[in-house]
Amino acid sequence: MKILVINGPNLDLLGTREQAIYGTETLDDIKGHLEKKAKELSVEIDFRQSNHEGDIIDWIGEAKKTIDAIIINPAAYTHTSVGIRDAISAVELPAVEVHLSNVHAREEFRQRSYIAPVCLGQICGFGSHGYILALEALINR
Amino acid sequence: MKILVINGPNLDLLGTREQAIYGTETLDDIKGHLEKKAKELSVEIDFRQSNHEGDIIDWIGEAKKTIDAIIINPAAYTHTSVGIRDAISAVELPAVEVHLSNVHAREEFRQRSYIAPVCLGQICGFGSHGYILALEALINR
Amino acid sequence: MKILVINGPNLDLLGTREQAIYGTETLDDIKGHLEKKAKELSVEIDFRQSNHEGDIIDWIGEAKKTIDAIIINPAAYTHTSVGIRDAISAVELPAVEVHLSNVHAREEFRQRSYIAPVCLGQICGFGSHGYILALEALINR
Amino acid sequence: MKILVINGPNLDLLGTREQAIYGTETLDDIKGHLEKKAKELSVEIDFRQSNHEGDIIDWIGEAKKTIDAIIINPAAYTHTSVGIRDAISAVELPAVEVHLSNVHAREEFRQRSYIAPVCLGQICGFGSHGYILALEALINR
Amino acid sequence: MKILVINGPNLDLLGTREQAIYGTETLDDIKGHLEKKAKELSVEIDFRQSNHEGDIIDWIGEAKKTIDAIIINPAAYTHTSVGIRDAISAVELPAVEVHLSNVHAREEFRQRSYIAPVCLGQICGFGSHGYILALEALINR
Amino acid sequence: MKILVINGPNLDLLGTREQAIYGTETLDDIKGHLEKKAKELSVEIDFRQSNHEGDIIDWIGEAKKTIDAIIINPAAYTHTSVGIRDAISAVELPAVEVHLSNVHAREEFRQRSYIAPVCLGQICGFGSHGYILALEALINR
Amino acid sequence: MKILVINGPNLDLLGTREQAIYGTETLDDIKGHLEKKAKELSVEIDFRQSNHEGDIIDWIGEAKKTIDAIIINPAAYTHTSVGIRDAISAVELPAVEVHLSNVHAREEFRQRSYIAPVCLGQICGFGSHGYILALEALINR
Amino acid sequence: MKILVINGPNLDLLGTREQAIYGTETLDDIKGHLEKKAKELSVEIDFRQSNHEGDIIDWIGEAKKTIDAIIINPAAYTHTSVGIRDAISAVELPAVEVHLSNVHAREEFRQRSYIAPVCLGQICGFGSHGYILALEALINR
Amino acid sequence: MKILVINGPNLDLLGTREQAIYGTETLDDIKGHLEKKAKELSVEIDFRQSNHEGDIIDWIGEAKKTIDAIIINPAAYTHTSVGIRDAISAVELPAVEVHLSNVHAREEFRQRSYIAPVCLGQICGFGSHGYILALEALINR
Amino acid sequence: MKILVINGPNLDLLGTREQAIYGTETLDDIKGHLEKKAKELSVEIDFRQSNHEGDIIDWIGEAKKTIDAIIINPAAYTHTSVGIRDAISAVELPAVEVHLSNVHAREEFRQRSYIAPVCLGQICGFGSHGYILALEALINR
Amino acid sequence: MKILVINGPNLDLLGTREQAIYGTETLDDIKGHLEKKAKELSVEIDFRQSNHEGDIIDWIGEAKKTIDAIIINPAAYTHTSVGIRDAISAVELPAVEVHLSNVHAREEFRQRSYIAPVCLGQICGFGSHGYILALEALINR
Amino acid sequence: MKILVINGPNLDLLGTREQAIYGTETLDDIKGHLEKKAKELSVEIDFRQSNHEGDIIDWIGEAKKTIDAIIINPAAYTHTSVGIRDAISAVELPAVEVHLSNVHAREEFRQRSYIAPVCLGQICGFGSHGYILALEALINR
Repeated sequence: MKILVINGPNLDLLGTREQAIYGTETLDDIKGHLEKKAKELSVEIDFRQSNHEGDIIDWIGEAKKTIDAIIINPAAYTHTSVGIRDAISAVELPAVEVHLSNVHAREEFRQRSYIAPVCLGQICGFGSHGYILALEALINR
Repeated sequence: MKILVINGPNLDLLGTREQAIYGTETLDDIKGHLEKKAKELSVEIDFRQSNHEGDIIDWIGEAKKTIDAIIINPAAYTHTSVGIRDAISAVELPAVEVHLSNVHAREEFRQRSYIAPVCLGQICGFGSHGYILALEALINR
Repeated sequence: MKILVINGPNLDLLGTREQAIYGTETLDDIKGHLEKKAKELSVEIDFRQSNHEGDIIDWIGEAKKTIDAIIINPAAYTHTSVGIRDAISAVELPAVEVHLSNVHAREEFRQRSYIAPVCLGQICGFGSHGYILALEALINR
Repeated sequence: MKILVINGPNLDLLGTREQAIYGTETLDDIKGHLEKKAKELSVEIDFRQSNHEGDIIDWIGEAKKTIDAIIINPAAYTHTSVGIRDAISAVELPAVEVHLSNVHAREEFRQRSYIAPVCLGQICGFGSHGYILALEALINR
Repeated sequence: MKILVINGPNLDLLGTREQAIYGTETLDDIKGHLEKKAKELSVEIDFRQSNHEGDIIDWIGEAKKTIDAIIINPAAYTHTSVGIRDAISAVELPAVEVHLSNVHAREEFRQRSYIAPVCLGQICGFGSHGYILALEALINR
Repeated sequence: MKILVINGPNLDLLGTREQAIYGTETLDDIKGHLEKKAKELSVEIDFRQSNHEGDIIDWIGEAKKTIDAIIINPAAYTHTSVGIRDAISAVELPAVEVHLSNVHAREEFRQRSYIAPVCLGQICGFGSHGYILALEALINR
Repeated sequence: MKILVINGPNLDLLGTREQAIYGTETLDDIKGHLEKKAKELSVEIDFRQSNHEGDIIDWIGEAKKTIDAIIINPAAYTHTSVGIRDAISAVELPAVEVHLSNVHAREEFRQRSYIAPVCLGQICGFGSHGYILALEALINR
Repeated sequence: MKILVINGPNLDLLGTREQAIYGTETLDDIKGHLEKKAKELSVEIDFRQSNHEGDIIDWIGEAKKTIDAIIINPAAYTHTSVGIRDAISAVELPAVEVHLSNVHAREEFRQRSYIAPVCLGQICGFGSHGYILALEALINR
Repeated sequence: MKILVINGPNLDLLGTREQAIYGTETLDDIKGHLEKKAKELSVEIDFRQSNHEGDIIDWIGEAKKTIDAIIINPAAYTHTSVGIRDAISAVELPAVEVHLSNVHAREEFRQRSYIAPVCLGQICGFGSHGYILALEALINR
Repeated sequence: MKILVINGPNLDLLGTREQAIYGTETLDDIKGHLEKKAKELSVEIDFRQSNHEGDIIDWIGEAKKTIDAIIINPAAYTHTSVGIRDAISAVELPAVEVHLSNVHAREEFRQRSYIAPVCLGQICGFGSHGYILALEALINR
Repeated sequence: MKILVINGPNLDLLGTREQAIYGTETLDDIKGHLEKKAKELSVEIDFRQSNHEGDIIDWIGEAKKTIDAIIINPAAYTHTSVGIRDAISAVELPAVEVHLSNVHAREEFRQRSYIAPVCLGQICGFGSHGYILALEALINR
Repeated sequence: MKILVINGPNLDLLGTREQAIYGTETLDDIKGHLEKKAKELSVEIDFRQSNHEGDIIDWIGEAKKTIDAIIINPAAYTHTSVGIRDAISAVELPAVEVHLSNVHAREEFRQRSYIAPVCLGQICGFGSHGYILALEALINR
């Protein structure tokens, strides 16, 4: 079993970005934790980050052939990308939306997710541990 | 460590209710799985269900003295209860909102949660496994 | 055939409440007329009233086992209760929504019914006679 | 006592139109049932159909002189005709709005009725039996 | 194969009406071009215009028996007629919505079409050539 | 100079309709007053009423050839007819919108006029005298 | 009979302001025409202009004692002044709202009038002649 | 004279709940102050709290027979309970709505009160002193 | 201690204005009652009224130096004046908003107060007694 | 004559993606059909696809020099890209918007097109044949 | 060249008002800096402040004769004054809107400017330096 | 001191694009003017343009290490990019938003800026001179 983990815009800045909100953990740290967990569960992880909506759509489109499930933290694209929504619909792979922060406690425009309706479910507010939970949710299924 | 698990309206009907959507698992089944997991993690679970908004507010208010964290599936009250929101704010305990189904893929009025903004986070769409994930999320914290 | 008749908040005050709008008939009078009609039609009536949303959800949940159809005047809960809506969906019994007054001629917020979309239909504006019509509608079906 | 029964646009197609939703009963069948019931109740029925908003307004305007009450299924004009609303207000005759289907369970734009606020009440969701109920509601009054 | 071509309100004024926007071509010219094209494609055209919403609903209702497809330029009724929408749904014939001008570039209220959702598709902005394109789209199907 | 005076739906009921609001004057009385005034001002009046939106659109379309200006009380069609709006735009004749009552003091949906933006101006709230004022406004121009 | 004529903000600039829209007539010209007409009709005119919302409210408040009716062109205050609305309600004098331009054909925010609902009626779009029409409307009453 | 004082959800937590906002005074303290003031004014106080909407509706319904006026702090139910609104309308007793905090300075959804329109008036923002002011307001009347 | 009492537009008309709603008490009567109460409480009152938004902003700006608290009945400016809101924020004096009538039971546009969010609290619906309550609320603080 | 044909996000997945909706035709098939048709009409086609909004903007910007017209299926970017809209405005080339499915019959957010208002027109709902129609529309012009 | 600099409500309180937001600089300081800069650029400055909307409209109206351009910080009137907007339109002088704070980062209602659409442009968020930038922007033009 | 100057989509077309609105100056001209000014002020400029949202997010993310401030003209992305907003928040560098045209005088959807709330301020409407003003604003700070 192989899982594509997609990180959206600005997540490459984790650890330096607004530490009061996002903590000091970097995206590499998250990757490390997740790969360790994946090993325990005998699944393979393909962990990526891009600030480009088009890259993320490309990756999802290509995933159809080689990937079994998707974990996606679309970050800012959560609220603006119909393209990523359509990509997930198109490939018909099970997907889980993850957010580090509790988006429901933030600005009004962050309440709308274009992505969540085409995912299995959403996990938000648990920091990097959310990725681990998403992985377990996919495996459990 | 003791965790109060609150189940809102109509969850007592699980297993009989709309099986195509909610499956054949009963609330007692969920309670069983969760208690087993809790035992492994050495935490105590107080698992309850009520169709009465007032009961749920009562329970949260009393939780302050004896409970360390809350897992809540507010079901229909997610979208209509300012009272449960205020109760969680008032007791200042960490709480996680859980939904069996992916609320983001349902009716417009189910997109708004009064409860999520005062919780740590939200987990939805993973059926009864969502309770296990919520428990892990609280322990991890 | 057994029909559960549910009356929502403040309907216990009928006959004393705003007589210019609601008339001098009490809820017991309505019960009497309806039971007489039910006898003629050889159906059994279980007639109840509560001001508690939770009671109404409880009753509908329990109805699954012993009841064939529901007549409900959800009164104020028409406009605010997702819980009662979900209860009716869950038990999958035929239900008819009744209102004494013509809700379409009243305040804006009374235009929205959470309950009607999961009922067979709605009858409003004919005072207590609406219950008789609802009974006939169910029998005719 | 004489009652004008008005059927709005496309109701002439009943029996052929979307049978899964509307059944195989034609408008003539409905007329037949209603006239039979009217005879029992010793009232006279004037049963009409038009696809023209103007015809319906004409008929209501003329009704003032010879008609005692109106049963109207405005169909599509329910949601778009201020003219029919004003006509009913103008003649000050008791009127009942009937719909075959449960409009509350359909598209958003079908939730708004221009006509209902100037009627005695509304009956929807009971197919052709709704006309019989409307007749009884008027007689009872 | 026989196609009903319906032209809505004010289209009889083409050629005299706001020539800067609509050009000097009359509705008869459009009819001519379309009949010529139809002949080439061996289909029969029944070309009509009315300013009356009721006429248009009448025509669509009658089309069920003798017509294979509909091309409709509902003009102003695009934005206000639920009746025409319901008529097209009722007869279950393939239909194409045509507009001479690009409605998306005009007033806000012209953005909403009640008709388009029940058609196969929509063609707008190409003047009278839109009718030819609609004909081809139907034939191609 | 010839002026077309168009009266929309239900205005034929004036004098009998809701006398507390509209008074006892009939449409014929209004016609009489207006024709007398027109004679004084040496203009010709063509005074009509219809409950049919299509008739009104027909009349405006034909007006292009023989009429110099339009006075229109669109009544209920004020708020729902894009067709009449487009007709007035199409013939490019000066038009004045008249209302007997002060529409700005009535229901929310009567605040919107589709017609007024394509007229020279609007006069409302002065009963039948509004027609005289409209005539003077046109002559003065 | 004495009539207070109130002119709101920027009307002192008439004749110099945007001549393409408002023409070359000054406010003094309008005053002249109106006083001439008033003389013919044997009524007295008190013609004023202010850019200050407070002045206009003061004038209306004082009008109660000495004035029989009000003609008001509230200009920009039409859309923003609840104070002027309340003043007219308070003094219970008949009032007519006048606008030089057709406000219904301008920006969205000019569609809302706080003032019109407490006036007898509204006249707009006829330039300075609107004042003469308003005077006649008041006299006719 | 006897006054029913109703406290809505979570007010039982006062003194422990979010002390920075609500202070250290408990609901018993408020009861004490109010009873002392009532004694001075020779009125009797019946002071209650419930987290159950249904209880509050029950109490208001029963109040009709034995109570002269109502002071109500509906807390969270202010914004969601049509049932309490209808109860106050039904018993036709003078009522005053009180809030400890200034609801106008809080979340958007706290701006809407279903209760206030059926009360004499509203007092908010003065902490527990608001109850004393409400009592004086009722006595003064 | 010195308190500035500000009365907004049209309050100078009290006693003559719409007596059915506002009673026969004049603003001078209110001033008298309030000064008597103030004397009892040993505070000084500076009681003013203006119809000019600018005057009220001027007064609040000057209040910083010599005034300890503000009681303000902004009347119509409640709903339209960001300027008065900013003035109260700027001087950072405790302020209480008072309304004679229950604004929550009136027109939709009166539900919004620009002023209340920057005040300590709001008192409405108790007629002139609201000023006394506001004074007590300030003293109690 | 040279025409740039732009295909937006996820169109590269055609033929594999949701075949029930989009059929089994691939984007290469569409390219083939279109090039064949273009050859017949003696125009040159430059057929491209990208998931990157920026690529599409780049291509349109460069088109100014070498291209005569644009056919664009912006797919998901239809509803979210102001950038593509501005690009088309900037190059001032005639453009036609094409959609495979009937967007008017899909989710609410697909009703809004940022692109259509700056195109000549829109064609939707005819599958791949829509490209052929767009080509003919451009040639006809 | 002579430039009118208009400061709206509460700007006279600068230096004392909310220093954390607005700093300790007074309006006189700003005037000083701006006059110094103006001298360098050989333009004349007429620097004014008023809390009265009417004063500001008066000044703009008079500006036509003697002034070449306007710098305006409308403060609270930005969001509520159609009158000032119309004044600037009327005099057809180039104007620049300045705000000390970044209005885009504040309350929702501060996002709307009635004034900006009739100005050359807007500068906000740079404190008093914004006036200098506005002056340079006007000179550069 | 080093300043990153970012130009969003379609700004590479300046000088050729809609010259009536944007003039004949190219982006290279703007770069030249700005570099000249920067030299005078002894600051370094890094001037870039991209049509790709992802590029702009990349640049801002990298800016943290080497750049002191940002001038950004996000063009179309102003209204649609949460990603650029989050990038600016993340790097915590002072930023100024610039627009060539006065966005407040254009389409409704251009009124909303996702970017401005996380910038120091906004400058719009002064053409290319806006960049110079932004530079001065940053230096002055």
